[in-house]
Amino acid sequence: MADGDNDAEGQANYLVISGDGHAGPPSAVYREYLDPVWHEQFDAHRAALEAGRMTNAAFVEAWDEETGDHELLAAFDATTRDKVLDVEGVVAEVLFPDADVLGTGRTASSPFGSGLGAGVGGEPPEVIFAGARAHNRWLADFCATSSHRRIGVAVVPVTAGVDAAVTELRAAHELGLRGVLIPTRWFDRPAYHDLAYDPFWAACAELGMVLHTHSGAGPADYEMGPGFVGIYAAEAWWWAARPLWVLLLSGVFERHPTLRYVVAENGAWWVPDLVKRMDEKWIGAHNTRKFGDIFRAELSMKPSEYVDRNVFLAASTPGQDEIDRRHEIGLGNLVWGNDLPHPEGTYPHTRHWIATRFGAVPVEEARQVLGLNAVVLYGLDVDALRPLADRIGPTVADIQGGGAIEQGVR
Amino acid sequence: MADGDNDAEGQANYLVISGDGHAGPPSAVYREYLDPVWHEQFDAHRAALEAGRMTNAAFVEAWDEETGDHELLAAFDATTRDKVLDVEGVVAEVLFPDADVLGTGRTASSPFGSGLGAGVGGEPPEVIFAGARAHNRWLADFCATSSHRRIGVAVVPVTAGVDAAVTELRAAHELGLRGVLIPTRWFDRPAYHDLAYDPFWAACAELGMVLHTHSGAGPADYEMGPGFVGIYAAEAWWWAARPLWVLLLSGVFERHPTLRYVVAENGAWWVPDLVKRMDEKWIGAHNTRKFGDIFRAELSMKPSEYVDRNVFLAASTPGQDEIDRRHEIGLGNLVWGNDLPHPEGTYPHTRHWIATRFGAVPVEEARQVLGLNAVVLYGLDVDALRPLADRIGPTVADIQGGGAIEQGVR
Repeated sequence: MADGDNDAEGQANYLVISGDGHAGPPSAVYREYLDPVWHEQFDAHRAALEAGRMTNAAFVEAWDEETGDHELLAAFDATTRDKVLDVEGVVAEVLFPDADVLGTGRTASSPFGSGLGAGVGGEPPEVIFAGARAHNRWLADFCATSSHRRIGVAVVPVTAGVDAAVTELRAAHELGLRGVLIPTRWFDRPAYHDLAYDPFWAACAELGMVLHTHSGAGPADYEMGPGFVGIYAAEAWWWAARPLWVLLLSGVFERHPTLRYVVAENGAWWVPDLVKRMDEKWIGAHNTRKFGDIFRAELSMKPSEYVDRNVFLAASTPGQDEIDRRHEIGLGNLVWGNDLPHPEGTYPHTRHWIATRFGAVPVEEARQVLGLNAVVLYGLDVDALRPLADRIGPTVADIQGGGAIEQGVR
Repeated sequence: MADGDNDAEGQANYLVISGDGHAGPPSAVYREYLDPVWHEQFDAHRAALEAGRMTNAAFVEAWDEETGDHELLAAFDATTRDKVLDVEGVVAEVLFPDADVLGTGRTASSPFGSGLGAGVGGEPPEVIFAGARAHNRWLADFCATSSHRRIGVAVVPVTAGVDAAVTELRAAHELGLRGVLIPTRWFDRPAYHDLAYDPFWAACAELGMVLHTHSGAGPADYEMGPGFVGIYAAEAWWWAARPLWVLLLSGVFERHPTLRYVVAENGAWWVPDLVKRMDEKWIGAHNTRKFGDIFRAELSMKPSEYVDRNVFLAASTPGQDEIDRRHEIGLGNLVWGNDLPHPEGTYPHTRHWIATRFGAVPVEEARQVLGLNAVVLYGLDVDALRPLADRIGPTVADIQGGGAIEQGVR
């Protein structure tokens, strides 16, 4: 982006880019992208998955009425997706896997659990990589239907094998995908501070492929029992945030200064407090003096400086805390998203939610979080997106005009 | 405590009570408290422990110069302890195990790893309970040397067996101990939402034994590698905080309304953000609507209401964030401590640190956090402690008089 574009925008429509969207086709389509040797296993895996789905009838009815999308076409049909994005006011979006709408029983999940929950099921490496390859090739085709509008993130289950992961990363880059999603949790595999992963981080940096983790991997160290779902929901943010400090404190951003890393759909309210405490230890606060200089071993800069340089928070459907703390989080590091089509996202009421959250935020700051930070992060072509923004983007009056109506937004 | 005592205090000296102290004798003393059948195994366990100690020569020198306590007498010698408490201005304290000063190589740790790190080593249940019994009996004798001043917390490794834990809990209560420390992490044992633990929670509530977890159990799900200590230090607070929401969300405080639970030496800066998010899910915010009413299944009240009623934060050596957020944390739930004799605590500069932290806090609020909350929590006899406070307690002028000198306190 040339800075001039921004300055010149003045009262131009907002360029809204979602840093968190999901896409995936029904099983029958994924099947076509899989090598036939996997078909039998795929059918069995899907059948087991379908059998385990929970549905919530009251929620299905409400959801269908809200979205009118009974077949979940927005998850994979290009025409429907573009129409939905136009209504939402979104010119471009980052695409993760697993567009399933939980609670409706409708599935669109990356084969063999290679998507958001990668690592949970413990599938053999060759199986999970076969699933990843199928998703990535479908996604590349989907992104090609509107290449400026869709920023595809490949699924690469690096915990299942670093060499295979580097190979798939390079293939995904060749296919035009712009980033890579690795498993949020390593489960029984080595944690991300292990030097065995270094060739993968190096390849991401070399290719300019943005590294992502995304909330979603379920609990693994406690069994069903009272409060199970509540406990999972209370601590999911932490498991999803964890790779941030494991990568940072083990020196990954020191060794790979151009690597960009995104924590997706995990809020950002937690960033200032955690980074502050990492800084304190690096500086050498009283309560860590018994450790000597050990916190500086891998880091020539303060942790907050790596966060500023290397880390982005795709805090989709931000709460008021993210807005209030945007300067502490880093105004240039916070990326809005609508989490389309997940029901915890703002779809189909995104225009309203944007106005509610950003109504009191200065225009230039709102422009950054709502789109321009994503432009920088993914190296997008603003000129190509501007005409669409002029047609569908929210106006300054829409957002800062004071017309937002509270609808129980929290 | 009669309310009148507080009202009547006016400009009286502060009644300072530490919610986090540590005590434990050298190995030779612990040996005497162990059944002789364990002696051989104890000697081998100690030898392995000593061999694995890190020492930091520069730190040892500084520490010895600061404290003058080359033999770590404050950890177990009643006369020395009382002298130190007098200098610190502390009238009474809660006593956890493991008075080791890490970095000096000096050990005072509960036998067979039955203390702060219980569960880490995976010792057989009969071994770890033997260690716990020895510590608890030593501690009861130590507390008896000054029964108003020492509030003993028994170590009870409940994850090693609920029946044995209930038996030891009752024995500890008989011995005059006032609370119980359970392992902070459950490792490969059932998590604390499991109904198997319910008889133990019930017995704690019945006896009025305050339940505690305390920071300290090390990482268990990643191996040595770059940044290992930093990663541990960055996330130790979360592992230590975790039992709070596991107990709360699984309905333990619903089923046992009089149970009091303390998170010790783990700060409290994290409480408002985490509790707010638990409340949001209970209320039924937008982003959890797909789950229906599942968050209310175990809880008739909002999570924050259980925190207010059942939970205390023994945030020893509080940072400025704990002070600034004291009302959000709960003014009646925050308990100060000096972590004596651990070097991350405020010993031997406690008077200075109290003045630095509480200088701008209204007197009545400071009185609560510095002592009166602990009086309520442990049911202490204020009348018995008042004469000592009159002699050694900091005055209002000491704390609110504006004389605190910054010494790089963070």
